Amino acid sequence: MADLELVHGLLTPYESKIVLLVLDGLGGLAMEPDGLTSLEAARTPNMDRLAAEGIVGLHQPVAPGITPGSGPGHIGLFGYDAIQYQIGRGVLEALGIGFDLLDDDLAARGNFCTIDSDGNVTDRRAGRISTEVCAELCSELQRIEIPGVEIFVEAVREHRFLLVLRGPGLAEGVAETDPGHLGDPPSDPVAERAEAEGTATIVQRFVDEARIRLADRSPANMVLLRGFAKLPDWPMFPDVFGLRSIAVAQYPMYRGVAKLVGMDSVPVGASKEDLFGTLERVLPDYDFAFVHVKDTDKAGEDGDFESKVNVIEEIDTYIPRIVELDPAVILITGDHSTPAALRSHSWHPVPFLLRSPNCRRDEAKQFGERWCLGGGGGLCRSDDLMPLALAHAERLAKFGA
Amino acid sequence: MADLELVHGLLTPYESKIVLLVLDGLGGLAMEPDGLTSLEAARTPNMDRLAAEGIVGLHQPVAPGITPGSGPGHIGLFGYDAIQYQIGRGVLEALGIGFDLLDDDLAARGNFCTIDSDGNVTDRRAGRISTEVCAELCSELQRIEIPGVEIFVEAVREHRFLLVLRGPGLAEGVAETDPGHLGDPPSDPVAERAEAEGTATIVQRFVDEARIRLADRSPANMVLLRGFAKLPDWPMFPDVFGLRSIAVAQYPMYRGVAKLVGMDSVPVGASKEDLFGTLERVLPDYDFAFVHVKDTDKAGEDGDFESKVNVIEEIDTYIPRIVELDPAVILITGDHSTPAALRSHSWHPVPFLLRSPNCRRDEAKQFGERWCLGGGGGLCRSDDLMPLALAHAERLAKFGA
Repeated sequence: MADLELVHGLLTPYESKIVLLVLDGLGGLAMEPDGLTSLEAARTPNMDRLAAEGIVGLHQPVAPGITPGSGPGHIGLFGYDAIQYQIGRGVLEALGIGFDLLDDDLAARGNFCTIDSDGNVTDRRAGRISTEVCAELCSELQRIEIPGVEIFVEAVREHRFLLVLRGPGLAEGVAETDPGHLGDPPSDPVAERAEAEGTATIVQRFVDEARIRLADRSPANMVLLRGFAKLPDWPMFPDVFGLRSIAVAQYPMYRGVAKLVGMDSVPVGASKEDLFGTLERVLPDYDFAFVHVKDTDKAGEDGDFESKVNVIEEIDTYIPRIVELDPAVILITGDHSTPAALRSHSWHPVPFLLRSPNCRRDEAKQFGERWCLGGGGGLCRSDDLMPLALAHAERLAKFGA
Repeated sequence: MADLELVHGLLTPYESKIVLLVLDGLGGLAMEPDGLTSLEAARTPNMDRLAAEGIVGLHQPVAPGITPGSGPGHIGLFGYDAIQYQIGRGVLEALGIGFDLLDDDLAARGNFCTIDSDGNVTDRRAGRISTEVCAELCSELQRIEIPGVEIFVEAVREHRFLLVLRGPGLAEGVAETDPGHLGDPPSDPVAERAEAEGTATIVQRFVDEARIRLADRSPANMVLLRGFAKLPDWPMFPDVFGLRSIAVAQYPMYRGVAKLVGMDSVPVGASKEDLFGTLERVLPDYDFAFVHVKDTDKAGEDGDFESKVNVIEEIDTYIPRIVELDPAVILITGDHSTPAALRSHSWHPVPFLLRSPNCRRDEAKQFGERWCLGGGGGLCRSDDLMPLALAHAERLAKFGA
């Protein structure tokens, strides 16, 4: 892996565009021995043509054997080492619901939970209350007032909510209050380092108030908080790679992760037509577009092999419209594998396809895991893909004389 | 490579077993151009079936181009970075003969050597005296008494012996006394750091006494000492990977390396039947078993291509008994290559086979170097194999949300 500084130092100005199309959770497994994966099974004449014209390969997110969440999966595709650049859970929760964090905000992930009359946790998820009940309880907690900080409590889904504290001097380093098991009371939000002591006091006060306000709301009669985090202070993608960059994504999480590294984003309607129409509209003003398709991952998580095939086939019909835009590089891949057979993200390497006039073509004539295995892109790290794309877009100068 | 802390942080409790079968020195070379390696030439219907059901690949011990000894070879297979986690030579020597080192013992590798009347070394191996003579001389040195330390002098083989000093306050950091060439006297065991000064004095005294006691024992009339080392203080394998672990190995060296990382071990009889029978007996009480076969390496070191083929074929007949135990993951590989053509360990990547229901199958239908090259496991690092095995055993949670 080349580091960001090295790549940045080699940037050379050039008018060339890169389109990164992410089919979330693209990688898969066969449902039976000697079967095909969804990508292998899908009829994808357009992606196959690009595979024939370019290189295919597999990329390994995070590290061998490690299953990435959506955050690390995308951070890797964006060229960052996903182990070095970790997103705090509170921040991820804010990204997921499109909450617009400010630089000094402190975010945490909250769970409503159940405590018994002794104060011990009996259910860490409060019986998975409905999202509607969650929203109502969040409105109640939103009324908590603590001098010197503004408080935001936003429902996420079922028992999950987002807590954001806004005010001067808030610091990371507050311990989670989730004891991680049943039968003990919630832990205190203690300061893990000196500069977090004031913040810990504020969180303690929030927790104490929440206990009072939720007392008769069983099973959701208490809260657990974890992943206290602020926006990270990372090198920004447009600067590091010299690309005016935009995210074209329908879900807040993915616009959020892109925003975290400094990409612009644009609102997109719900259809595939909206997605690719938006790409066509914005690409003239940008050098790099990240286009995100969620439904492949959803189908995998649902264990619906056929639906994943259908999504891939549908997306394939839009590929000619990307080609028509004539970017120097088209990179099609996933952020991780989500095999329908496992109904979850997995550690398996992810197929990718990179098409550019500068490719050293390989023998692959189709896009799918088994053909990627012998492809010209080899088995690389996820964060190798950005330097590869830049090189094929003729945006990197020689290293050394 | 994922680091130990990262992997440890993702552990998730699960009832699944992993069997690591190490055929020592498994990797090979063809004896003539366009020939087959021993593994390729061997008839291995059972391993071939596992190869077809799982993934194959090659792992690189230590780093490309580096030929590993047995210690680093196994340390890598156990998931540790073999460059970061190095075993001192004295400790390795102790492991090799099954000497039970205590935490504060200081071990060194000894050679009997020849010095002339001026005290200069004329043969660093004392004409490779027989192991019997070595044992007799070790008994002589065992009589040396130094106040405050207990001394153990154990014959290893030919001119090689083990010195162990036991007592309070012994420290690493004593320079070797082997000058590394002929014509100079043995070097003094000087302290390389302040805390080793007391220890260096003790070693000097041992060396002085040895010179007197060996004066008329030419050609073995002096000793050379090197590799002063104590047991390392490493993270323990069972804790790091959350696996109740046991070594099933016939040679002290391999039980010793396993013990160094905290695995249990069990005495095993000399036959292959003993080896696999022991595995069957102990696996119910463990999550991870490391089974070690030495004869593949021996055959390679002897330059005996056919014998290596025969050993591999013999081991293949036991594979169904491992399958019968129904572990979630069967991982078959070597700790390094020992090509009969080279009669020694080598730097060549080592074939591996990982079989689990969660594998993304590759096209390989046979187990052998040439088929591993295009396999789904790619060309990975040795220390990638443990995270991969844990992932396939469903023992790792997602990284990030």
